[in-house]
Amino acid sequence: MMEIRGAGRIARTAAAELREHGSSLRYTTLEDFRREMHRAAAVLTETRPTAVSLPNAVRFVISRIDASESLEEAQAALVESADDFIARSRQAVEMIAEFGSRAIPEDSVIMTHCNSEVAVATTIKAWEKGRVREAFVTEVRPRNQGYITAKALSDAGIPTNFIVDSAARYFMRDIDAVITGADAVTAGGAVVNKIGTSQIALAAHEARVPFIVTTETYKFAPGTLLGERIPIEERAPQEVVDDEIAGMMPNVRVRNPAFDVTPAAYIDMIVTEAGGIPPGMAYVIIRDYLGWNCGEWQKNFLIDHQE
Amino acid sequence: MMEIRGAGRIARTAAAELREHGSSLRYTTLEDFRREMHRAAAVLTETRPTAVSLPNAVRFVISRIDASESLEEAQAALVESADDFIARSRQAVEMIAEFGSRAIPEDSVIMTHCNSEVAVATTIKAWEKGRVREAFVTEVRPRNQGYITAKALSDAGIPTNFIVDSAARYFMRDIDAVITGADAVTAGGAVVNKIGTSQIALAAHEARVPFIVTTETYKFAPGTLLGERIPIEERAPQEVVDDEIAGMMPNVRVRNPAFDVTPAAYIDMIVTEAGGIPPGMAYVIIRDYLGWNCGEWQKNFLIDHQE
Amino acid sequence: MMEIRGAGRIARTAAAELREHGSSLRYTTLEDFRREMHRAAAVLTETRPTAVSLPNAVRFVISRIDASESLEEAQAALVESADDFIARSRQAVEMIAEFGSRAIPEDSVIMTHCNSEVAVATTIKAWEKGRVREAFVTEVRPRNQGYITAKALSDAGIPTNFIVDSAARYFMRDIDAVITGADAVTAGGAVVNKIGTSQIALAAHEARVPFIVTTETYKFAPGTLLGERIPIEERAPQEVVDDEIAGMMPNVRVRNPAFDVTPAAYIDMIVTEAGGIPPGMAYVIIRDYLGWNCGEWQKNFLIDHQE
Amino acid sequence: MMEIRGAGRIARTAAAELREHGSSLRYTTLEDFRREMHRAAAVLTETRPTAVSLPNAVRFVISRIDASESLEEAQAALVESADDFIARSRQAVEMIAEFGSRAIPEDSVIMTHCNSEVAVATTIKAWEKGRVREAFVTEVRPRNQGYITAKALSDAGIPTNFIVDSAARYFMRDIDAVITGADAVTAGGAVVNKIGTSQIALAAHEARVPFIVTTETYKFAPGTLLGERIPIEERAPQEVVDDEIAGMMPNVRVRNPAFDVTPAAYIDMIVTEAGGIPPGMAYVIIRDYLGWNCGEWQKNFLIDHQE
Amino acid sequence: MMEIRGAGRIARTAAAELREHGSSLRYTTLEDFRREMHRAAAVLTETRPTAVSLPNAVRFVISRIDASESLEEAQAALVESADDFIARSRQAVEMIAEFGSRAIPEDSVIMTHCNSEVAVATTIKAWEKGRVREAFVTEVRPRNQGYITAKALSDAGIPTNFIVDSAARYFMRDIDAVITGADAVTAGGAVVNKIGTSQIALAAHEARVPFIVTTETYKFAPGTLLGERIPIEERAPQEVVDDEIAGMMPNVRVRNPAFDVTPAAYIDMIVTEAGGIPPGMAYVIIRDYLGWNCGEWQKNFLIDHQE
Amino acid sequence: MMEIRGAGRIARTAAAELREHGSSLRYTTLEDFRREMHRAAAVLTETRPTAVSLPNAVRFVISRIDASESLEEAQAALVESADDFIARSRQAVEMIAEFGSRAIPEDSVIMTHCNSEVAVATTIKAWEKGRVREAFVTEVRPRNQGYITAKALSDAGIPTNFIVDSAARYFMRDIDAVITGADAVTAGGAVVNKIGTSQIALAAHEARVPFIVTTETYKFAPGTLLGERIPIEERAPQEVVDDEIAGMMPNVRVRNPAFDVTPAAYIDMIVTEAGGIPPGMAYVIIRDYLGWNCGEWQKNFLIDHQE
Repeated sequence: MMEIRGAGRIARTAAAELREHGSSLRYTTLEDFRREMHRAAAVLTETRPTAVSLPNAVRFVISRIDASESLEEAQAALVESADDFIARSRQAVEMIAEFGSRAIPEDSVIMTHCNSEVAVATTIKAWEKGRVREAFVTEVRPRNQGYITAKALSDAGIPTNFIVDSAARYFMRDIDAVITGADAVTAGGAVVNKIGTSQIALAAHEARVPFIVTTETYKFAPGTLLGERIPIEERAPQEVVDDEIAGMMPNVRVRNPAFDVTPAAYIDMIVTEAGGIPPGMAYVIIRDYLGWNCGEWQKNFLIDHQE
Repeated sequence: MMEIRGAGRIARTAAAELREHGSSLRYTTLEDFRREMHRAAAVLTETRPTAVSLPNAVRFVISRIDASESLEEAQAALVESADDFIARSRQAVEMIAEFGSRAIPEDSVIMTHCNSEVAVATTIKAWEKGRVREAFVTEVRPRNQGYITAKALSDAGIPTNFIVDSAARYFMRDIDAVITGADAVTAGGAVVNKIGTSQIALAAHEARVPFIVTTETYKFAPGTLLGERIPIEERAPQEVVDDEIAGMMPNVRVRNPAFDVTPAAYIDMIVTEAGGIPPGMAYVIIRDYLGWNCGEWQKNFLIDHQE
Repeated sequence: MMEIRGAGRIARTAAAELREHGSSLRYTTLEDFRREMHRAAAVLTETRPTAVSLPNAVRFVISRIDASESLEEAQAALVESADDFIARSRQAVEMIAEFGSRAIPEDSVIMTHCNSEVAVATTIKAWEKGRVREAFVTEVRPRNQGYITAKALSDAGIPTNFIVDSAARYFMRDIDAVITGADAVTAGGAVVNKIGTSQIALAAHEARVPFIVTTETYKFAPGTLLGERIPIEERAPQEVVDDEIAGMMPNVRVRNPAFDVTPAAYIDMIVTEAGGIPPGMAYVIIRDYLGWNCGEWQKNFLIDHQE
Repeated sequence: MMEIRGAGRIARTAAAELREHGSSLRYTTLEDFRREMHRAAAVLTETRPTAVSLPNAVRFVISRIDASESLEEAQAALVESADDFIARSRQAVEMIAEFGSRAIPEDSVIMTHCNSEVAVATTIKAWEKGRVREAFVTEVRPRNQGYITAKALSDAGIPTNFIVDSAARYFMRDIDAVITGADAVTAGGAVVNKIGTSQIALAAHEARVPFIVTTETYKFAPGTLLGERIPIEERAPQEVVDDEIAGMMPNVRVRNPAFDVTPAAYIDMIVTEAGGIPPGMAYVIIRDYLGWNCGEWQKNFLIDHQE
Repeated sequence: MMEIRGAGRIARTAAAELREHGSSLRYTTLEDFRREMHRAAAVLTETRPTAVSLPNAVRFVISRIDASESLEEAQAALVESADDFIARSRQAVEMIAEFGSRAIPEDSVIMTHCNSEVAVATTIKAWEKGRVREAFVTEVRPRNQGYITAKALSDAGIPTNFIVDSAARYFMRDIDAVITGADAVTAGGAVVNKIGTSQIALAAHEARVPFIVTTETYKFAPGTLLGERIPIEERAPQEVVDDEIAGMMPNVRVRNPAFDVTPAAYIDMIVTEAGGIPPGMAYVIIRDYLGWNCGEWQKNFLIDHQE
Repeated sequence: MMEIRGAGRIARTAAAELREHGSSLRYTTLEDFRREMHRAAAVLTETRPTAVSLPNAVRFVISRIDASESLEEAQAALVESADDFIARSRQAVEMIAEFGSRAIPEDSVIMTHCNSEVAVATTIKAWEKGRVREAFVTEVRPRNQGYITAKALSDAGIPTNFIVDSAARYFMRDIDAVITGADAVTAGGAVVNKIGTSQIALAAHEARVPFIVTTETYKFAPGTLLGERIPIEERAPQEVVDDEIAGMMPNVRVRNPAFDVTPAAYIDMIVTEAGGIPPGMAYVIIRDYLGWNCGEWQKNFLIDHQE
């Protein structure tokens, strides 16, 4: 199972679970209700420590409970905020596709890497607007997600080319924009995405081709603001070489990192449902849009360290 | 058939064929002998117009005939020069491995791409001298030549890691030198090599990791001095996707370029049997080592254009 | 007519027109008044779709009406906000000149391109403070606005040099700061300005000479946050070659783009009446200073797409 | 005396002095109290015009007085805000060390320059977490503060190397992160720090080694937002050459700038008690965290210029 | 008069003059003949100290006299070498056009600056071979040589666009190769050419568009190998502004440098009649092709300094 | 003792020793004489394996013996070539100063690092020609050779500034050219020089200030053409910290590399007695000027490997 992928589904499920849990509680004071919801939120968050979208969903819901001034208000806020989060998450893809499609230069040849729901939706929307002429899709070794992307773009009618990952730089002179998704975005605007993304971003940067990342805001990782580093999962060697080949080179160690990190300097725009921003704005999204708050951290920090 | 690969064998065969052909001739004047040898050389060269090593081999042999002052001398020169070329070509790999192995920093982790005889020999020689600690080998899609390279290095005892092509930049911070072969070198010092090479060279350049190309001098392409561009072969789509997959995405066009061009600015050293040179020195190799000569071209040019 | 130029006048006129229009209305409910003002605002905005300052002026006025809680309050807010906008716009140039003049290194030789009211005011203010030693002014083909700028700086007493646009890089080693205005600023911090600006910015970046843009905040383009691209007007060929010359080269097509786009990476500081900011802060200016708001867009977006 | 150093102590003293002064006052109206406190604040600020932390401390305290609605509230706010500032300042180092220590890659060799309390605390914290393997400390001519830093890191148990300033680039290939403090941070994210810092940052940037600045937020210089330039103090020649040497080269002029400016583009992260931010976020810190406010400046500006 | 332009004519005239002068002499010893020819050569060279082609032509002729072993041989060598130089010079343009046209990528949009005989010939030759699709020609202020170039390319049938110099970067994304001539080439491979060339080369370098210089070898400046710097002529202000305009801005100083220097790092290939070389090879052309010789300089140097 | 420094003296002494040794020999056959001289040369070379100038001096002398066809000729050639080498070496500094002084832009402020005889001579020569306005001299920790350089330039009348090594980038904006010497030059054009040189070269490159290396050709290291790496000597810690300081930080390890390597890409010109060349030309100097020859190496290589 790829934990980080399907970030949208994880986030929406978390919001729904909090809603169900809270609705089933029978507390008589606001304080008790809050305490229990915080406890439940903490448990939920810890189930998947690497899923960036999870704490964002939980916080979205919990913060409105915290802002409530009575139990009734809090209970209503819970349901409302959970529903709101779910609706927003669903609409986010549509909004990103709309914003992103406008950002693509007219009559563009685009390149994409991996299979991102938002990047595909954006490309198809741009195609429908007549802004895309042709697409290049990479293979995406070792799991070949490029097959799905190529089929999706081609089925939408886009003249689609399929290339090995190594050929990205070869074709870069013909490309007008590269579009990818993201698995996580740091407070510094770096993007964690499928292995190979940073290499293509580097080649795009070299050729001055715009590199556009499309992603819902709940992929922005608030912990990175506190210095946390996003761990890069290393997956099973069998994804790369099957057992027969492995048997032929018994002393060779297969390394299979699932993601890499594209520096902010190689990214021209991150398109979110909050608009298309430069990567350096990630902090503002985390603070103002997702609602993470330094003052709060500092209070927690001081409490933790006084104990 | 991959024309350009096996450049060494093509070149040695050409030298041997010229020697056999010339030995079988029964001319009585130097002029007739020369004319026939030039004709045979032209025929031979045209059989494989994209094989850079072929004109270099032919020129090596023919130029000594041209320098001879009698039929006997010319006939002896033919045999001697063909034998000399063949011997030199065989020794070149050994010399390059020796020179290249000294150029690798001590206690290095090296990365290589594709399966180059000289790059593998250089890496193993450096390992034997204790200069290599570990190796990273890429998969080399679509034909997976990385399997052969990984096995060769691992069999030589080198702790060897195997990665997908997309992961090259991810591991670059751990690499001390990248070593590859070459299919052709232009007069400007650019290197034509397996698709993906230029992307790795770019990542090495970004990280300031030395990028070392190992190649016999007969891969230097004299025609590029006259402005010729080296054509990049595009190979069959079946190498990239098998028929079953292709059937699932019927409107997708597979593009399969076999090589790409690494600019001279990303190459730190080209190690040849004439020593390790900066890429900007390619012209000097073509002129002084391979013996191609501007005056001669000019003469030919003028004759062609007077007719 | 150059639509985008004179952005200040366009904006102030729009504010005044809204004020006059609203003052003449005789509505009895807040809702009716609001609806009519929104309609009028939309009509006004559409008259000049490429004038970035127009929607900013309109929004400044309308947002205070929207925040009013009674008809009387709204009517008062209209007059007050329109007057306020006009006053601020007038004072902005003075503030920018003050802030910008401090940002120029002491004893500087400055270069400017085109004829920008704020850039000229900033340079003269810096001269008055003794921070400027000499100025270089470009010709600004095809309309030669450099004449006006050179005269303005020279008349202010600044030792002024006049050069063709092509000579900007030649003199860059002697320059301590480049100062220009802007026709528009994108959410990513790129600056749209007179053709040639980006070329000079590139040369300044190459030589590490600070490139300072001076501009009122109403030049920041909120639509770019939603992915919109700023269209570059192409003007009449007669500006470039007169008819006599054109007649001598009948098959030559004259291309005459009026503006180009300078990437944020080449800009050191954008000086606005809200202070001197790095270009990456454009989003914050659009949101917090001009008052454009993602939540609002999202609401509009959702409404548009539900219909 | 080095004015800017000991920025924390200066700031805390200023807050305490305001508290004492205000507590001793016997005013009967809020207005009088406010006026006197503003006067006292202005006097205090002017005592050390180059101490960036001073206006930040003063503003922190004064702004809460300004927000008070009665004399009693204002007097209480004074004491509370001064105490709060002092406590925060003391906790800031601890928080930065915590955040910064997480941002250092695992098993890192770090380099530092000069003797910064926060940089040393961060390095030691990271060492305690097992994230640091080794440290390189520069000499820091002319005053050799590197001795203190080397001793501090070594005493904490970190294997520590000591090098001359000139050797920083030589060892950069072995470094995983550079960590320094700051004397001031501009609104554009540039960092003023001990002479030599920018040279090391340049070498780190060249080698793509993360360059991390650790600093309390009160080092951020609000005046730079208004275009002010931070003056670089030039100190006594005797720090560089003693009198005996100076006597041997009588016509040589010793230049001894105490600080230099590292551009934002060479800085990967600025770690503050408000989190680890990209340098481009400095404006947001100044505005939202330190509470400096454009509207206010504009009001002041307009008043100043109306008189 | 533009001294450096028309370099070909100057060179050929010099060769012819030496031939006429030498043929008219009636010396009876080789030594006398040589001495007189050297004297005449020196006089000739000094007539136009900035014409790079002049010493190259003179040296071509004189060196064969110096190599002669009898008076008769020397006199014959004089005529032969002068004729040879003149013929070569005439054929050089044709050869460069042939080599250069091959170096242009297929189906290219090219850009050129100023009016260079070889650059135009190369572009037309490439058009005839079907390698050029479209051309962009700059205006070339202040003397508008772009008119001539645009007409020449358009008359040859090439779809030609005409733009102001400032628009070069704006269109660079559409360009596949930039082609210019040269007024001089230094031993380091830098190219002196019409003002504005270096700015376009910079923009091409930024966009990774190949920048190709076409030039006869006699433009290579041997003196630069001895550290000489090529002086940049500054021409009359009237070329830039006519008297009427000048009268309107009386205190403005017009600066009008005729040339600028494009660094070798921005040049991909210099196409000469000796082939297409990387700019770093300029020294080899000067030494081996033009025949300038370090030993000789050293001898002269030592003699000069012994006296 | 610093082995590599005083390279000129080492080289001249070696030539003289070979001359004395050869003159004292009483062989009767050319073959015996040659064998003995080769033996002596090998012994001499091995005495100081890291002195680059030694094998160059030895080869200069020996190669003429090898070219001799009789014992008498060889003996005469020995004396003549040794004397010639010594004379050339002495004149080289003068020639370099002459060439280099012309390469410095007019009215320059120059910076230098360490104490190089040729760099100082070049700067003074340029001063005498009126091309230098001012000089900046670094301290050169740990051995403070900057004292000697500052005194030398100041004594020559040049207005001279003295700065710590860390301040080089701070003053770079005011510098027109950096001039240093070299301890060795590789076949790739990299320069080995005093620790800190590469850092200054990087800062010069960043600011596009010309970086000029002055060096006799016998500093070019032929072995690097065969892949050899120049070892960087690490010197005694006592040079960096005296025993008292060292005692205060007992667990700190002092690292004291004497040299670093400046990449060719940061060097604009290497001025030698053979002229001012781009660094990429080092191979040609080694081969054509110092007389090292690939064919010869290949022969030796083949012999070594056949045994």
